[in-house]
Amino acid sequence: MSHAPATKPSLAGIETPGLVLDEGRMLNNIARLRTRLTQLGVRLRPHLKTAKSIEVARAVMEGPAGPAAVSTLREAEVFTEAGVRDILYAVGIAPQKLDRVAALRRRGVDLCIVLDCLEQATAVTAAARTTGDRIPVLIEIDCDGHRAGIRASDPLLVEIGRTLRAGGAELRGVMTHAGESYSCRGAAALEAAAEGERAAAVACAETLRSAGLPCPVVSVGSTPTAHFARRLDGVTEVRAGVFVMFDLVMAGIGVCTTDDIALSVLATVTGHRADRGWTFIDAGWMALSRDRGTARQEIDQGYGLVCDVDGRPYPDLIVGETNQEHGIITRRPGSAAPQMTLPIGTQARILPNHACATGAQHDRYHVVTAGSGAVKEWERFRGW
Amino acid sequence: MSHAPATKPSLAGIETPGLVLDEGRMLNNIARLRTRLTQLGVRLRPHLKTAKSIEVARAVMEGPAGPAAVSTLREAEVFTEAGVRDILYAVGIAPQKLDRVAALRRRGVDLCIVLDCLEQATAVTAAARTTGDRIPVLIEIDCDGHRAGIRASDPLLVEIGRTLRAGGAELRGVMTHAGESYSCRGAAALEAAAEGERAAAVACAETLRSAGLPCPVVSVGSTPTAHFARRLDGVTEVRAGVFVMFDLVMAGIGVCTTDDIALSVLATVTGHRADRGWTFIDAGWMALSRDRGTARQEIDQGYGLVCDVDGRPYPDLIVGETNQEHGIITRRPGSAAPQMTLPIGTQARILPNHACATGAQHDRYHVVTAGSGAVKEWERFRGW
Repeated sequence: MSHAPATKPSLAGIETPGLVLDEGRMLNNIARLRTRLTQLGVRLRPHLKTAKSIEVARAVMEGPAGPAAVSTLREAEVFTEAGVRDILYAVGIAPQKLDRVAALRRRGVDLCIVLDCLEQATAVTAAARTTGDRIPVLIEIDCDGHRAGIRASDPLLVEIGRTLRAGGAELRGVMTHAGESYSCRGAAALEAAAEGERAAAVACAETLRSAGLPCPVVSVGSTPTAHFARRLDGVTEVRAGVFVMFDLVMAGIGVCTTDDIALSVLATVTGHRADRGWTFIDAGWMALSRDRGTARQEIDQGYGLVCDVDGRPYPDLIVGETNQEHGIITRRPGSAAPQMTLPIGTQARILPNHACATGAQHDRYHVVTAGSGAVKEWERFRGW
Repeated sequence: MSHAPATKPSLAGIETPGLVLDEGRMLNNIARLRTRLTQLGVRLRPHLKTAKSIEVARAVMEGPAGPAAVSTLREAEVFTEAGVRDILYAVGIAPQKLDRVAALRRRGVDLCIVLDCLEQATAVTAAARTTGDRIPVLIEIDCDGHRAGIRASDPLLVEIGRTLRAGGAELRGVMTHAGESYSCRGAAALEAAAEGERAAAVACAETLRSAGLPCPVVSVGSTPTAHFARRLDGVTEVRAGVFVMFDLVMAGIGVCTTDDIALSVLATVTGHRADRGWTFIDAGWMALSRDRGTARQEIDQGYGLVCDVDGRPYPDLIVGETNQEHGIITRRPGSAAPQMTLPIGTQARILPNHACATGAQHDRYHVVTAGSGAVKEWERFRGW
């Protein structure tokens, strides 16, 4: 095993494929969004579904107790165990999950849930009556037709609010997610998406208040809109997750550059097929994930952009195809870059299309820090 | 929690999303291929990359010691620990991994590796000299341009064979994988792919033998060709993995029907969007995987085919879109089937595009067996 000088982290001893996290880039990404939101006067509620790691959570939260958002009750349970006390479970509640919600709340966590229909509201009020606990709820608003939520004009909003209040649950506010911002291109489109997200949430908050209902929380967020919102009047918190790592999809949207991407998959060259210009690596879709999020973008990055072991991209070299444990490195179609041969045994780092999907394929981060030769290990968890 | 009658496995208490394995279907799938290969007089070396489970491995192997094929050294290590003693690591070797290969072989496992170039052969002979262990090797043959391997006509084949023998490694034979059979449609095309796979491997074995080199093993395999080969003269073993579970891609190729698929993801309905005909479930791409293998087939199954909790498909209901923890059930585009509303809280089972990819997203199988009300739990592992 070779040892690099102390100022350069040595990845030579890491088994491949493995997940590498560049701590400096991560901290820069966090500082960038924190600075923006401080200027806009709004609190950050980081979404921990990308990280699934206690160490990353502590780096991105404003304090060890939160606030935070999660996508699964398993995340809520792990972060509760780690001391987080203010958690939004930001996926519409299934009635069957209310027992686990109640168990977490009994442990002293301020766990807030999300819903968008009367059946859910009725299940929540029934649980509130049974447990004697005023379960806090945000009503989900649809701001762009992306997914779930009530439209701002839907009278159901007030009806749900009244059902919750009458049934003994805590109507805490509204939340929305501008998921369509992932399809935007250019600052003007992103600013418009952010304003649409803000306006929808604030309008619904006003509707509830006009009906005499409380709405202390107005929660919005997606990584693109969080970085392009010009104003956030009326909003009380912004949720974002992937910004901590960034990825090729975010670079394609224009929210970051490839130099900001903190996550990569370390791989080893295992072979070649010269007649086709193929180089094989030991990172296939199992290590990179099946995510092809850049396929619909201007620059299709295949299954990932190939960098040297220090994280510098090779010109136009992508993982063009994958099998379970084989990646095939090719030049981007139409590229004029010179043919490149990486010898067998070479380590390379692959920037991912989608940090959430690629990270989920791994049990741990190998954390590198500029100026330090050491590589730390941070555990990741998964499951529901 | 409701309790179904004892003759029907109750999934009501399973947290969703969760991975369900129908043991009866699995055993039928195994018996079907075993019967075929017995008739053809060839041994089965099941590929355990799909299962990643000791219990499934024991059900599919001819005995507790193997033989078996694996796609990672982690699989080799876990199955060694579980008593398997005849393992083919069927992915081209990276020189850095030879230490782990040696460590496993010292534990008494007959671990055989795969390579297709002189650099790898030289690294293996160097390791053989260092350890004093005649590491057994299969040379990988390309039978259809799918991925790695030497073409049958390439003089490199004999050169690699001589390098291995001269350097003190054990040249054990040749292996090939008809990966292009996944793109075939219809029995004639699949039979031709199987014959192409067989002919390429046997021709290379003859080339080695004509050069005075040993070639006791002639290993072929893919699930489609394993099921469509009409003869396997000259072949000593067949590798296949996904046949244990089957999936929608295999059904699309015509290797199985959807009724043979033993793997599904249990999900719960969490909401609706009536104006769009959407039903939300708590299984997104994290639970289903990002695999869209049927997108290029005649019938695009989206992210999976929706069944009731007992595993009966609903007409034309698929998971049309996914986010991380949201699945959106829609009717297949162009379907004339009636609009279907699954109430909130309903449990559904989603048949996966690709069993290897979907299974990999989960830590355990919930195993259901016809005629038994009990649901067993079998652990899955992952990593490299």
